[in-house]
Amino acid sequence: MTEINEIMYKNYQKEINECLLRITAKKPELQKIICEAMEYSLSAGGKRLRPMLVLEFARLCGDDYKKYLEIACCLELVHTFSLIHDDLPCMDNDDFRRGRPSCHKIYPESIALLAGDALNTLPFEIITDKAVEGVISCETAVKLVNVLSKAIGVNGMIGGQVIDIEAENRRISLDELNTLQSLKTGALIKASCVMGCILANRDDLIPFAESYADCVGRAFQIVDDILDVEGSFEELGKPIGSDSESKKSTYVTILGLEKSKEISEKLTKDALDVLENFDDTEFLKDVTKYLLVRKN
Amino acid sequence: MTEINEIMYKNYQKEINECLLRITAKKPELQKIICEAMEYSLSAGGKRLRPMLVLEFARLCGDDYKKYLEIACCLELVHTFSLIHDDLPCMDNDDFRRGRPSCHKIYPESIALLAGDALNTLPFEIITDKAVEGVISCETAVKLVNVLSKAIGVNGMIGGQVIDIEAENRRISLDELNTLQSLKTGALIKASCVMGCILANRDDLIPFAESYADCVGRAFQIVDDILDVEGSFEELGKPIGSDSESKKSTYVTILGLEKSKEISEKLTKDALDVLENFDDTEFLKDVTKYLLVRKN
Repeated sequence: MTEINEIMYKNYQKEINECLLRITAKKPELQKIICEAMEYSLSAGGKRLRPMLVLEFARLCGDDYKKYLEIACCLELVHTFSLIHDDLPCMDNDDFRRGRPSCHKIYPESIALLAGDALNTLPFEIITDKAVEGVISCETAVKLVNVLSKAIGVNGMIGGQVIDIEAENRRISLDELNTLQSLKTGALIKASCVMGCILANRDDLIPFAESYADCVGRAFQIVDDILDVEGSFEELGKPIGSDSESKKSTYVTILGLEKSKEISEKLTKDALDVLENFDDTEFLKDVTKYLLVRKN
Repeated sequence: MTEINEIMYKNYQKEINECLLRITAKKPELQKIICEAMEYSLSAGGKRLRPMLVLEFARLCGDDYKKYLEIACCLELVHTFSLIHDDLPCMDNDDFRRGRPSCHKIYPESIALLAGDALNTLPFEIITDKAVEGVISCETAVKLVNVLSKAIGVNGMIGGQVIDIEAENRRISLDELNTLQSLKTGALIKASCVMGCILANRDDLIPFAESYADCVGRAFQIVDDILDVEGSFEELGKPIGSDSESKKSTYVTILGLEKSKEISEKLTKDALDVLENFDDTEFLKDVTKYLLVRKN
Protein backbone atom coordinates (compact mmCIF):
# COMPACT_ATOMS: atom_id res chain seq x y z
CA MET A 1 0.00 0.00 0.00
CA THR A 2 1.16 3.58 -0.57
CA GLU A 3 2.07 5.47 2.56
CA ILE A 4 -0.96 7.74 2.35
CA ASN A 5 -3.35 4.80 1.89
CA GLU A 6 -1.77 2.94 4.77
CA ILE A 7 -2.36 6.00 6.96
CA MET A 8 -5.96 6.12 5.78
CA TYR A 9 -6.50 2.41 6.60
CA LYS A 10 -4.87 2.84 10.02
CA ASN A 11 -7.14 5.83 10.64
CA TYR A 12 -10.22 3.75 9.76
CA GLN A 13 -9.00 1.01 12.11
CA LYS A 14 -8.36 3.49 14.91
CA GLU A 15 -11.84 4.98 14.61
CA ILE A 16 -13.42 1.52 14.40
CA ASN A 17 -11.47 0.23 17.42
CA GLU A 18 -12.41 3.27 19.50
CA CYS A 19 -16.05 2.92 18.49
CA LEU A 20 -16.06 -0.79 19.43
CA LEU A 21 -14.75 0.14 22.87
CA ARG A 22 -17.51 2.74 23.23
CA ILE A 23 -20.13 0.14 22.29
CA THR A 24 -19.05 -2.21 25.11
CA ALA A 25 -18.15 0.56 27.58
CA LYS A 26 -21.35 0.31 29.65
CA LYS A 27 -21.11 -2.80 31.82
CA PRO A 28 -24.12 -3.39 34.10
CA GLU A 29 -22.75 -4.68 37.42
CA LEU A 30 -24.52 -8.05 37.57
CA GLN A 31 -23.83 -8.87 33.89
CA LYS A 32 -20.29 -7.46 33.82
CA ILE A 33 -18.62 -10.73 32.88
CA ILE A 34 -20.44 -11.07 29.53
CA CYS A 35 -19.57 -7.47 28.59
CA GLU A 36 -15.94 -8.21 29.42
CA ALA A 37 -16.01 -11.36 27.29
CA MET A 38 -17.52 -9.39 24.38
CA GLU A 39 -14.90 -6.68 24.79
CA TYR A 40 -12.09 -9.27 25.04
CA SER A 41 -12.98 -10.78 21.69
CA LEU A 42 -13.75 -7.45 20.03
CA SER A 43 -10.43 -5.97 21.08
CA ALA A 44 -8.33 -8.85 19.76
CA GLY A 45 -7.49 -6.79 16.69
CA GLY A 46 -7.98 -8.02 13.16
CA LYS A 47 -8.17 -6.18 9.88
CA ARG A 48 -11.61 -4.62 10.57
CA LEU A 49 -12.25 -5.27 6.89
CA ARG A 50 -16.05 -5.43 7.13
CA PRO A 51 -16.70 -2.14 8.97
CA MET A 52 -14.05 -0.50 6.78
CA LEU A 53 -15.98 -1.62 3.68
CA VAL A 54 -19.23 -0.15 5.06
CA LEU A 55 -17.58 3.21 5.68
CA GLU A 56 -15.63 3.21 2.44
CA PHE A 57 -18.65 2.40 0.26
CA ALA A 58 -20.65 5.14 2.02
CA ARG A 59 -17.75 7.49 1.25
CA LEU A 60 -17.45 6.29 -2.38
CA CYS A 61 -21.19 6.95 -2.73
CA GLY A 62 -20.49 10.53 -1.74
CA ASP A 63 -21.69 10.54 1.85
CA ASP A 64 -19.96 11.78 5.00
CA TYR A 65 -19.12 8.40 6.54
CA LYS A 66 -18.23 9.54 10.10
CA LYS A 67 -21.80 9.47 11.38
CA TYR A 68 -22.11 5.80 10.43
CA LEU A 69 -19.27 4.45 12.59
CA GLU A 70 -21.52 2.55 15.04
CA ILE A 71 -23.51 1.03 12.21
CA ALA A 72 -20.30 -0.01 10.44
CA CYS A 73 -19.07 -1.61 13.67
CA CYS A 74 -22.18 -3.83 13.65
CA LEU A 75 -20.45 -5.89 10.95
CA GLU A 76 -17.52 -6.48 13.30
CA LEU A 77 -19.92 -7.47 16.09
CA VAL A 78 -21.46 -10.12 13.86
CA HIS A 79 -18.06 -11.28 12.59
CA THR A 80 -16.80 -11.59 16.18
CA PHE A 81 -19.94 -13.49 17.23
CA SER A 82 -19.21 -16.01 14.47
CA LEU A 83 -15.56 -16.36 15.55
CA ILE A 84 -16.47 -16.95 19.21
CA HIS A 85 -19.00 -19.67 18.34
CA ASP A 86 -16.68 -21.15 15.67
CA ASP A 87 -13.93 -21.64 18.27
CA LEU A 88 -16.18 -23.47 20.78
CA PRO A 89 -15.36 -27.12 21.58
CA CYS A 90 -18.46 -28.38 19.75
CA MET A 91 -17.40 -26.47 16.60
CA ASP A 92 -13.74 -26.12 15.55
CA ASN A 93 -12.44 -26.43 19.14
CA ASP A 94 -9.76 -23.78 18.53
CA ASP A 95 -7.74 -22.62 21.53
CA PHE A 96 -6.27 -19.61 19.74
CA ARG A 97 -7.70 -16.70 17.80
CA ARG A 98 -5.74 -13.73 16.49
CA GLY A 99 -2.71 -14.82 18.55
CA ARG A 100 -4.56 -14.87 21.87
CA PRO A 101 -6.47 -17.57 23.75
CA SER A 102 -10.01 -17.99 22.39
CA CYS A 103 -12.89 -16.41 24.33
CA HIS A 104 -13.90 -19.72 25.96
CA LYS A 105 -10.32 -20.32 27.15
CA ILE A 106 -10.43 -17.08 29.19
CA TYR A 107 -14.11 -17.11 30.21
CA PRO A 108 -16.39 -20.06 31.06
CA GLU A 109 -17.74 -21.74 27.94
CA SER A 110 -21.30 -20.74 28.90
CA ILE A 111 -20.29 -17.06 29.02
CA ALA A 112 -18.50 -17.31 25.66
CA LEU A 113 -21.62 -18.86 24.14
CA LEU A 114 -23.82 -16.07 25.52
CA ALA A 115 -21.30 -13.38 24.48
CA GLY A 116 -21.64 -14.66 20.91
CA ASP A 117 -25.44 -14.61 21.23
CA ALA A 118 -25.40 -11.02 22.52
CA LEU A 119 -23.10 -9.91 19.67
CA ASN A 120 -25.58 -11.46 17.22
CA THR A 121 -28.46 -9.35 18.57
CA LEU A 122 -26.70 -6.08 19.39
CA PRO A 123 -26.41 -4.83 15.78
CA PHE A 124 -30.19 -4.70 15.44
CA GLU A 125 -30.42 -2.61 18.59
CA ILE A 126 -27.72 -0.23 17.35
CA ILE A 127 -29.19 0.23 13.86
CA THR A 128 -32.70 0.93 15.15
CA ASP A 129 -31.34 3.22 17.89
CA LYS A 130 -29.79 5.31 15.08
CA ALA A 131 -33.21 5.54 13.41
CA VAL A 132 -34.83 6.57 16.69
CA GLU A 133 -32.09 9.23 17.11
CA GLY A 134 -32.76 10.45 13.57
CA VAL A 135 -29.26 9.74 12.25
CA ILE A 136 -30.81 7.53 9.58
CA SER A 137 -34.40 7.27 8.36
CA CYS A 138 -36.67 4.38 9.35
CA GLU A 139 -36.68 3.29 5.68
CA THR A 140 -32.89 3.07 5.73
CA ALA A 141 -32.91 1.19 9.06
CA VAL A 142 -35.37 -1.36 7.70
CA LYS A 143 -33.19 -1.94 4.62
CA LEU A 144 -30.04 -2.32 6.75
CA VAL A 145 -31.65 -4.76 9.21
CA ASN A 146 -33.09 -6.76 6.32
CA VAL A 147 -29.77 -7.04 4.46
CA LEU A 148 -27.79 -7.81 7.62
CA SER A 149 -30.16 -10.42 9.08
CA LYS A 150 -30.33 -12.25 5.74
CA ALA A 151 -26.51 -12.20 5.48
CA ILE A 152 -26.27 -13.83 8.93
CA GLY A 153 -29.02 -16.46 8.68
CA VAL A 154 -29.66 -19.84 7.11
CA ASN A 155 -29.11 -18.44 3.62
CA GLY A 156 -26.02 -16.50 4.72
CA MET A 157 -23.11 -16.96 7.09
CA ILE A 158 -24.76 -19.55 9.37
CA GLY A 159 -25.86 -21.57 6.34
CA GLY A 160 -22.26 -21.53 5.13
CA GLN A 161 -21.08 -22.86 8.47
CA VAL A 162 -23.60 -25.68 8.23
CA ILE A 163 -22.40 -26.63 4.74
CA ASP A 164 -18.86 -26.49 6.08
CA ILE A 165 -19.71 -28.93 8.90
CA GLU A 166 -21.57 -31.22 6.53
CA ALA A 167 -18.58 -31.21 4.15
CA GLU A 168 -16.06 -32.31 6.77
CA ASN A 169 -14.07 -35.44 6.11
CA ARG A 170 -15.25 -35.79 2.53
CA ARG A 171 -14.12 -34.42 -0.82
CA ILE A 172 -16.39 -31.69 -2.13
CA SER A 173 -16.63 -30.23 -5.64
CA LEU A 174 -15.44 -26.78 -6.61
CA ASP A 175 -19.09 -25.76 -7.08
CA GLU A 176 -19.93 -26.84 -3.56
CA LEU A 177 -16.87 -25.04 -2.17
CA ASN A 178 -17.90 -21.89 -4.04
CA THR A 179 -21.39 -22.05 -2.52
CA LEU A 180 -19.96 -22.75 0.94
CA GLN A 181 -17.55 -19.83 0.71
CA SER A 182 -20.03 -17.38 -0.82
CA LEU A 183 -22.22 -17.94 2.25
CA LYS A 184 -19.72 -18.50 5.07
CA THR A 185 -17.39 -15.57 4.31
CA GLY A 186 -18.95 -13.93 1.26
CA ALA A 187 -22.37 -13.04 2.64
CA LEU A 188 -21.09 -10.72 5.36
CA ILE A 189 -18.52 -9.06 3.09
CA LYS A 190 -21.27 -8.44 0.53
CA ALA A 191 -23.60 -7.07 3.20
CA SER A 192 -20.84 -4.64 4.26
CA CYS A 193 -20.47 -3.16 0.77
CA VAL A 194 -24.24 -3.06 0.17
CA MET A 195 -24.95 -1.40 3.54
CA GLY A 196 -22.49 1.37 2.65
CA CYS A 197 -24.55 2.13 -0.48
CA ILE A 198 -27.83 1.96 1.48
CA LEU A 199 -26.50 4.40 4.09
CA ALA A 200 -25.56 6.86 1.34
CA ASN A 201 -28.99 6.45 -0.26
CA ARG A 202 -27.46 5.11 -3.45
CA ASP A 203 -29.42 1.88 -4.02
CA ASP A 204 -28.61 2.27 -7.74
CA LEU A 205 -24.97 1.42 -6.96
CA ILE A 206 -25.80 -1.79 -5.02
CA PRO A 207 -25.31 -4.13 -8.03
CA PHE A 208 -21.74 -2.84 -8.47
CA ALA A 209 -21.05 -3.16 -4.74
CA GLU A 210 -22.32 -6.74 -4.93
CA SER A 211 -20.10 -7.60 -7.92
CA TYR A 212 -17.09 -6.11 -6.17
CA ALA A 213 -17.89 -8.06 -2.99
CA ASP A 214 -18.35 -11.33 -4.89
CA CYS A 215 -14.85 -11.05 -6.38
CA VAL A 216 -13.14 -9.78 -3.23
CA GLY A 217 -14.92 -12.28 -0.96
CA ARG A 218 -13.83 -15.25 -3.05
CA ALA A 219 -10.28 -13.92 -3.50
CA PHE A 220 -10.14 -13.34 0.27
CA GLN A 221 -11.06 -16.96 1.02
CA ILE A 222 -8.62 -18.38 -1.54
CA VAL A 223 -5.80 -16.31 -0.01
CA ASP A 224 -6.87 -17.59 3.44
CA ASP A 225 -6.53 -21.16 2.19
CA ILE A 226 -3.12 -20.38 0.68
CA LEU A 227 -1.96 -18.80 3.96
CA ASP A 228 -3.09 -21.89 5.87
CA VAL A 229 -0.46 -23.80 3.86
CA GLU A 230 2.22 -21.16 3.44
CA GLY A 231 1.80 -18.91 6.49
CA SER A 232 3.36 -19.04 9.94
CA PHE A 233 1.86 -19.09 13.45
CA GLU A 234 3.39 -15.69 14.20
CA GLU A 235 1.75 -14.11 11.19
CA LEU A 236 -1.61 -15.90 11.39
CA GLY A 237 -2.05 -15.97 15.17
CA LYS A 238 -3.30 -19.57 14.97
CA PRO A 239 -1.75 -22.95 14.17
CA ILE A 240 -1.02 -23.39 10.45
CA GLY A 241 -2.06 -26.42 8.46
CA SER A 242 -5.17 -26.81 10.63
CA ASP A 243 -7.37 -27.14 7.53
CA SER A 244 -5.37 -29.96 5.90
CA GLU A 245 -5.05 -31.77 9.24
CA SER A 246 -8.83 -31.96 9.50
CA LYS A 247 -9.01 -33.25 5.91
CA LYS A 248 -11.05 -30.21 4.98
CA SER A 249 -11.52 -29.42 1.29
CA THR A 250 -10.06 -25.99 0.49
CA TYR A 251 -9.29 -24.10 -2.71
CA VAL A 252 -5.70 -25.35 -2.35
CA THR A 253 -6.66 -29.03 -1.92
CA ILE A 254 -9.10 -28.84 -4.85
CA LEU A 255 -7.21 -26.59 -7.27
CA GLY A 256 -3.61 -26.79 -6.10
CA LEU A 257 -1.42 -23.89 -5.00
CA GLU A 258 -0.56 -22.49 -8.44
CA LYS A 259 -4.09 -22.48 -9.82
CA SER A 260 -5.39 -20.98 -6.53
CA LYS A 261 -2.95 -18.09 -6.81
CA GLU A 262 -3.87 -17.55 -10.45
CA ILE A 263 -7.60 -17.41 -9.69
CA SER A 264 -7.22 -15.09 -6.71
CA GLU A 265 -5.23 -12.72 -8.94
CA LYS A 266 -7.90 -12.83 -11.63
CA LEU A 267 -10.66 -12.16 -9.07
CA THR A 268 -8.71 -9.21 -7.67
CA LYS A 269 -8.37 -7.78 -11.17
CA ASP A 270 -12.13 -8.19 -11.72
CA ALA A 271 -12.83 -6.45 -8.40
CA LEU A 272 -10.63 -3.53 -9.44
CA ASP A 273 -12.49 -3.28 -12.76
CA VAL A 274 -15.88 -3.05 -11.02
CA LEU A 275 -14.61 -0.14 -8.93
CA GLU A 276 -14.45 1.91 -12.16
CA ASN A 277 -18.17 2.53 -11.57
CA PHE A 278 -17.29 4.66 -8.52
CA ASP A 279 -15.21 7.84 -8.13
CA ASP A 280 -12.28 8.42 -5.79
CA THR A 281 -11.42 4.72 -5.54
CA GLU A 282 -7.64 4.97 -5.16
CA PHE A 283 -7.70 3.89 -1.52
CA LEU A 284 -10.07 0.93 -1.98
CA LYS A 285 -8.12 -0.25 -5.03
CA ASP A 286 -4.95 -0.25 -2.96
CA VAL A 287 -6.68 -2.18 -0.15
CA THR A 288 -8.07 -4.67 -2.66
CA LYS A 289 -4.56 -5.33 -3.98
CA TYR A 290 -3.20 -5.57 -0.42
CA LEU A 291 -5.75 -8.27 0.46
CA LEU A 292 -4.16 -10.43 -2.24
CA VAL A 293 -0.61 -10.16 -0.90
CA ARG A 294 -1.42 -10.02 2.86
CA LYS A 295 0.41 -12.34 5.23
CA ASN A 296 -2.45 -12.86 7.71
CA MET B 1 -60.66 -21.76 31.72
CA THR B 2 -64.22 -21.51 30.34
CA GLU B 3 -64.92 -23.71 27.35
CA ILE B 4 -65.15 -20.78 24.95
CA ASN B 5 -61.83 -19.34 26.16
CA GLU B 6 -60.17 -22.71 25.93
CA ILE B 7 -61.32 -22.94 22.31
CA MET B 8 -59.95 -19.46 21.68
CA TYR B 9 -56.55 -20.38 23.19
CA LYS B 10 -56.44 -23.62 21.19
CA ASN B 11 -57.26 -21.63 18.07
CA TYR B 12 -54.41 -19.21 18.76
CA GLN B 13 -52.06 -22.17 19.30
CA LYS B 14 -53.20 -23.84 16.09
CA GLU B 15 -52.62 -20.69 14.06
CA ILE B 16 -49.23 -20.12 15.72
CA ASN B 17 -48.13 -23.74 15.17
CA GLU B 18 -49.14 -23.63 11.51
CA CYS B 19 -47.33 -20.34 11.03
CA LEU B 20 -44.16 -21.72 12.67
CA LEU B 21 -44.23 -24.63 10.22
CA ARG B 22 -44.61 -22.19 7.31
CA ILE B 23 -41.62 -20.19 8.56
CA THR B 24 -39.33 -23.25 8.49
CA ALA B 25 -40.95 -24.86 5.43
CA LYS B 26 -38.29 -23.76 2.94
CA LYS B 27 -35.24 -25.95 3.43
CA PRO B 28 -32.33 -25.19 1.07
CA GLU B 29 -30.81 -28.56 0.08
CA LEU B 30 -27.26 -28.05 1.39
CA GLN B 31 -28.39 -26.50 4.69
CA LYS B 32 -31.37 -28.83 5.22
CA ILE B 33 -30.13 -30.21 8.53
CA ILE B 34 -30.19 -26.85 10.34
CA CYS B 35 -33.73 -26.14 9.12
CA GLU B 36 -34.79 -29.57 10.39
CA ALA B 37 -33.17 -28.89 13.77
CA MET B 38 -34.97 -25.53 13.99
CA GLU B 39 -38.25 -27.18 13.05
CA TYR B 40 -37.68 -30.02 15.54
CA SER B 41 -37.35 -27.61 18.44
CA LEU B 42 -40.11 -25.29 17.24
CA SER B 43 -42.59 -28.14 16.87
CA ALA B 44 -42.02 -29.54 20.37
CA GLY B 45 -45.20 -27.84 21.53
CA GLY B 46 -45.33 -25.55 24.52
CA LYS B 47 -47.89 -22.99 25.59
CA ARG B 48 -47.00 -20.46 22.83
CA LEU B 49 -47.57 -17.85 25.53
CA ARG B 50 -45.36 -15.15 23.99
CA PRO B 51 -46.81 -15.09 20.45
CA MET B 52 -50.30 -15.39 21.96
CA LEU B 53 -49.62 -12.26 24.04
CA VAL B 54 -48.48 -10.33 20.95
CA LEU B 55 -51.67 -11.24 19.08
CA GLU B 56 -53.93 -10.73 22.08
CA PHE B 57 -52.56 -7.27 22.90
CA ALA B 58 -52.90 -6.24 19.25
CA ARG B 59 -56.52 -7.45 19.44
CA LEU B 60 -57.17 -5.71 22.80
CA CYS B 61 -55.83 -2.53 21.20
CA GLY B 62 -58.52 -2.89 18.58
CA ASP B 63 -56.52 -4.18 15.64
CA ASP B 64 -57.16 -7.16 13.38
CA TYR B 65 -54.46 -9.47 14.70
CA LYS B 66 -54.44 -12.09 11.90
CA LYS B 67 -52.01 -10.19 9.69
CA TYR B 68 -49.40 -10.17 12.47
CA LEU B 69 -49.06 -13.95 12.92
CA GLU B 70 -45.51 -14.18 11.53
CA ILE B 71 -44.38 -11.24 13.65
CA ALA B 72 -45.96 -12.80 16.76
CA CYS B 73 -44.15 -16.07 15.98
CA CYS B 74 -40.85 -14.18 16.17
CA LEU B 75 -41.21 -14.27 19.96
CA GLU B 76 -41.45 -18.07 19.84
CA LEU B 77 -38.35 -18.18 17.58
CA VAL B 78 -36.37 -16.20 20.17
CA HIS B 79 -37.78 -18.25 23.06
CA THR B 80 -36.84 -21.49 21.27
CA PHE B 81 -33.33 -20.16 20.51
CA SER B 82 -32.86 -19.58 24.24
CA LEU B 83 -34.12 -23.07 25.11
CA ILE B 84 -31.79 -24.78 22.60
CA HIS B 85 -28.73 -22.90 23.90
CA ASP B 86 -29.84 -23.34 27.54
CA ASP B 87 -29.93 -27.13 27.10
CA LEU B 88 -26.39 -27.36 25.63
CA PRO B 89 -23.76 -29.28 27.65
CA CYS B 90 -21.86 -26.07 28.50
CA MET B 91 -25.07 -24.52 29.89
CA ASP B 92 -27.69 -26.59 31.80
CA ASN B 93 -26.76 -29.85 30.02
CA ASP B 94 -30.40 -30.93 29.84
CA ASP B 95 -31.21 -34.06 27.82
CA PHE B 96 -34.94 -33.43 27.79
CA ARG B 97 -37.16 -30.53 26.80
CA ARG B 98 -40.93 -30.56 26.61
CA GLY B 99 -40.90 -34.35 27.03
CA ARG B 100 -38.63 -35.00 24.04
CA PRO B 101 -34.85 -35.28 23.68
CA SER B 102 -33.17 -31.86 23.52
CA CYS B 103 -32.11 -30.52 20.11
CA HIS B 104 -28.45 -31.47 20.63
CA LYS B 105 -29.42 -35.06 21.54
CA ILE B 106 -31.04 -35.51 18.12
CA TYR B 107 -28.68 -33.35 16.02
CA PRO B 108 -24.93 -32.79 16.39
CA GLU B 109 -24.14 -30.21 19.06
CA SER B 110 -22.66 -27.90 16.41
CA ILE B 111 -25.93 -27.95 14.44
CA ALA B 112 -27.96 -27.29 17.60
CA LEU B 113 -25.72 -24.31 18.40
CA LEU B 114 -26.16 -22.89 14.89
CA ALA B 115 -29.92 -23.59 14.92
CA GLY B 116 -30.13 -21.40 18.03
CA ASP B 117 -28.04 -18.72 16.32
CA ALA B 118 -30.29 -18.76 13.25
CA LEU B 119 -33.44 -18.50 15.40
CA ASN B 120 -31.88 -15.45 17.09
CA THR B 121 -31.45 -13.64 13.76
CA LEU B 122 -34.55 -14.77 11.86
CA PRO B 123 -37.04 -12.50 13.70
CA PHE B 124 -35.28 -9.40 12.39
CA GLU B 125 -35.52 -10.71 8.85
CA ILE B 126 -39.23 -11.49 9.27
CA ILE B 127 -40.14 -8.12 10.82
CA THR B 128 -38.32 -6.09 8.15
CA ASP B 129 -39.73 -8.32 5.38
CA LYS B 130 -43.19 -7.31 6.63
CA ALA B 131 -42.21 -3.64 6.32
CA VAL B 132 -40.88 -4.22 2.80
CA GLU B 133 -44.17 -5.98 1.92
CA GLY B 134 -46.10 -3.02 3.35
CA VAL B 135 -47.93 -5.03 6.06
CA ILE B 136 -46.46 -2.68 8.67
CA SER B 137 -44.83 0.74 8.29
CA CYS B 138 -41.07 1.23 8.51
CA GLU B 139 -41.63 3.25 11.70
CA THR B 140 -43.46 0.30 13.27
CA ALA B 141 -40.75 -2.14 12.11
CA VAL B 142 -38.04 0.03 13.69
CA LYS B 143 -39.92 0.12 17.01
CA LEU B 144 -40.49 -3.65 16.97
CA VAL B 145 -36.85 -4.46 16.16
CA ASN B 146 -35.68 -2.04 18.83
CA VAL B 147 -37.92 -3.47 21.55
CA LEU B 148 -37.17 -7.08 20.61
CA SER B 149 -33.38 -6.74 20.31
CA LYS B 150 -33.19 -4.96 23.68
CA ALA B 151 -35.34 -7.68 25.28
CA ILE B 152 -32.92 -10.34 23.98
CA GLY B 153 -29.57 -8.68 24.73
CA VAL B 154 -27.26 -7.96 27.65
CA ASN B 155 -29.95 -5.92 29.41
CA GLY B 156 -32.62 -8.51 28.64
CA MET B 157 -32.91 -12.28 28.41
CA ILE B 158 -29.21 -13.00 27.79
CA GLY B 159 -28.24 -10.73 30.70
CA GLY B 160 -30.64 -12.70 32.89
CA GLN B 161 -28.99 -15.95 31.85
CA VAL B 162 -25.60 -14.50 32.79
CA ILE B 163 -26.85 -13.47 36.25
CA ASP B 164 -28.33 -16.95 36.60
CA ILE B 165 -24.96 -18.57 35.82
CA GLU B 166 -23.14 -16.20 38.16
CA ALA B 167 -25.64 -17.01 40.94
CA GLU B 168 -25.13 -20.77 40.76
CA ASN B 169 -24.05 -22.54 43.92
CA ARG B 170 -24.54 -19.52 46.16
CA ARG B 171 -27.45 -18.01 48.04
CA ILE B 172 -28.83 -14.89 46.39
CA SER B 173 -31.14 -12.24 47.81
CA LEU B 174 -34.76 -11.78 46.82
CA ASP B 175 -33.78 -8.51 45.10
CA GLU B 176 -31.17 -10.30 43.03
CA LEU B 177 -33.62 -13.06 42.14
CA ASN B 178 -36.18 -10.45 41.09
CA THR B 179 -33.63 -8.76 38.81
CA LEU B 180 -32.54 -12.13 37.41
CA GLN B 181 -36.12 -13.18 36.71
CA SER B 182 -37.24 -9.84 35.30
CA LEU B 183 -34.48 -10.19 32.69
CA LYS B 184 -34.32 -13.93 32.04
CA THR B 185 -38.05 -14.61 31.67
CA GLY B 186 -39.63 -11.20 32.14
CA ALA B 187 -37.98 -9.26 29.33
CA LEU B 188 -39.37 -11.40 26.53
CA ILE B 189 -42.86 -11.58 28.06
CA LYS B 190 -42.86 -7.79 28.39
CA ALA B 191 -41.64 -7.38 24.80
CA SER B 192 -44.53 -9.60 23.64
CA CYS B 193 -47.17 -7.40 25.28
CA VAL B 194 -45.49 -4.16 24.17
CA MET B 195 -45.09 -5.34 20.57
CA GLY B 196 -48.82 -6.05 20.42
CA CYS B 197 -49.52 -2.40 21.31
CA ILE B 198 -46.92 -1.16 18.81
CA LEU B 199 -48.47 -3.26 16.03
CA ALA B 200 -51.88 -1.73 16.76
CA ASN B 201 -50.38 1.77 16.81
CA ARG B 202 -51.41 2.29 20.42
CA ASP B 203 -48.14 3.42 22.02
CA ASP B 204 -50.27 5.17 24.66
CA LEU B 205 -51.25 1.77 26.05
CA ILE B 206 -47.65 0.51 26.37
CA PRO B 207 -47.28 1.48 30.08
CA PHE B 208 -50.31 -0.68 30.96
CA ALA B 209 -49.00 -3.56 28.86
CA GLU B 210 -45.69 -3.25 30.70
CA SER B 211 -47.33 -3.30 34.13
CA TYR B 212 -49.40 -6.32 33.18
CA ALA B 213 -46.29 -8.09 31.87
CA ASP B 214 -44.29 -7.29 35.02
CA CYS B 215 -46.91 -8.97 37.21
CA VAL B 216 -47.57 -11.92 34.93
CA GLY B 217 -43.87 -12.50 34.20
CA ARG B 218 -43.00 -12.71 37.90
CA ALA B 219 -46.05 -14.82 38.75
CA PHE B 220 -45.13 -17.12 35.86
CA GLN B 221 -41.61 -17.66 37.22
CA ILE B 222 -42.80 -18.24 40.78
CA VAL B 223 -45.27 -20.87 39.54
CA ASP B 224 -42.41 -22.46 37.54
CA ASP B 225 -40.37 -22.72 40.74
CA ILE B 226 -43.34 -24.20 42.62
CA LEU B 227 -43.90 -26.76 39.83
CA ASP B 228 -40.23 -27.74 39.98
CA VAL B 229 -40.93 -28.90 43.54
CA GLU B 230 -44.53 -30.10 43.24
CA GLY B 231 -44.83 -31.17 39.58
CA SER B 232 -44.23 -34.52 37.92
CA PHE B 233 -42.04 -35.55 34.97
CA GLU B 234 -45.11 -36.46 32.91
CA GLU B 235 -46.64 -33.03 33.39
CA LEU B 236 -43.43 -30.99 33.07
CA GLY B 237 -41.68 -33.01 30.35
CA LYS B 238 -38.38 -32.68 32.23
CA PRO B 239 -36.95 -34.10 35.46
CA ILE B 240 -38.43 -32.47 38.57
CA GLY B 241 -36.33 -31.10 41.38
CA SER B 242 -33.57 -30.17 38.93
CA ASP B 243 -33.33 -26.67 40.43
CA SER B 244 -32.89 -27.76 44.05
CA GLU B 245 -30.43 -30.46 42.99
CA SER B 246 -28.17 -27.82 41.46
CA LYS B 247 -28.44 -25.73 44.66
CA LYS B 248 -30.07 -22.96 42.64
CA SER B 249 -31.82 -20.18 44.54
CA THR B 250 -35.49 -20.04 43.53
CA TYR B 251 -38.56 -18.25 44.87
CA VAL B 252 -39.38 -21.45 46.76
CA THR B 253 -35.93 -21.80 48.36
CA ILE B 254 -35.89 -18.11 49.33
CA LEU B 255 -39.54 -17.56 50.34
CA GLY B 256 -40.83 -21.05 51.04
CA LEU B 257 -43.76 -22.75 49.31
CA GLU B 258 -46.61 -20.99 51.14
CA LYS B 259 -45.27 -17.45 50.73
CA SER B 260 -44.45 -18.19 47.06
CA LYS B 261 -48.04 -19.23 46.39
CA GLU B 262 -49.35 -16.17 48.22
CA ILE B 263 -47.19 -13.79 46.18
CA SER B 264 -48.02 -15.41 42.86
CA GLU B 265 -51.71 -15.03 43.69
CA LYS B 266 -51.24 -11.36 44.59
CA LEU B 267 -49.32 -10.72 41.35
CA THR B 268 -52.05 -12.43 39.34
CA LYS B 269 -54.65 -10.20 40.99
CA ASP B 270 -52.56 -7.10 40.17
CA ALA B 271 -52.26 -8.26 36.55
CA LEU B 272 -56.02 -8.66 36.31
CA ASP B 273 -56.50 -5.14 37.73
CA VAL B 274 -54.22 -3.60 35.08
CA LEU B 275 -56.31 -5.22 32.36
CA GLU B 276 -59.18 -2.91 33.38
CA ASN B 277 -57.44 -0.34 31.16
CA PHE B 278 -58.38 -2.40 28.10
CA ASP B 279 -61.72 -3.53 26.67
CA ASP B 280 -62.81 -7.07 25.81
CA THR B 281 -60.36 -8.67 28.26
CA GLU B 282 -62.40 -11.70 29.28
CA PHE B 283 -60.15 -14.14 27.43
CA LEU B 284 -56.84 -12.70 28.65
CA LYS B 285 -58.13 -12.56 32.22
CA ASP B 286 -59.02 -16.22 32.02
CA VAL B 287 -55.57 -17.08 30.60
CA THR B 288 -53.91 -15.03 33.34
CA LYS B 289 -55.77 -17.01 35.99
CA TYR B 290 -54.95 -20.28 34.22
CA LEU B 291 -51.19 -19.47 34.29
CA LEU B 292 -51.44 -19.47 38.09
CA VAL B 293 -52.99 -22.93 38.35
CA ARG B 294 -51.26 -24.62 35.40
CA LYS B 295 -49.57 -27.96 35.88
CA ASN B 296 -46.69 -27.45 33.42
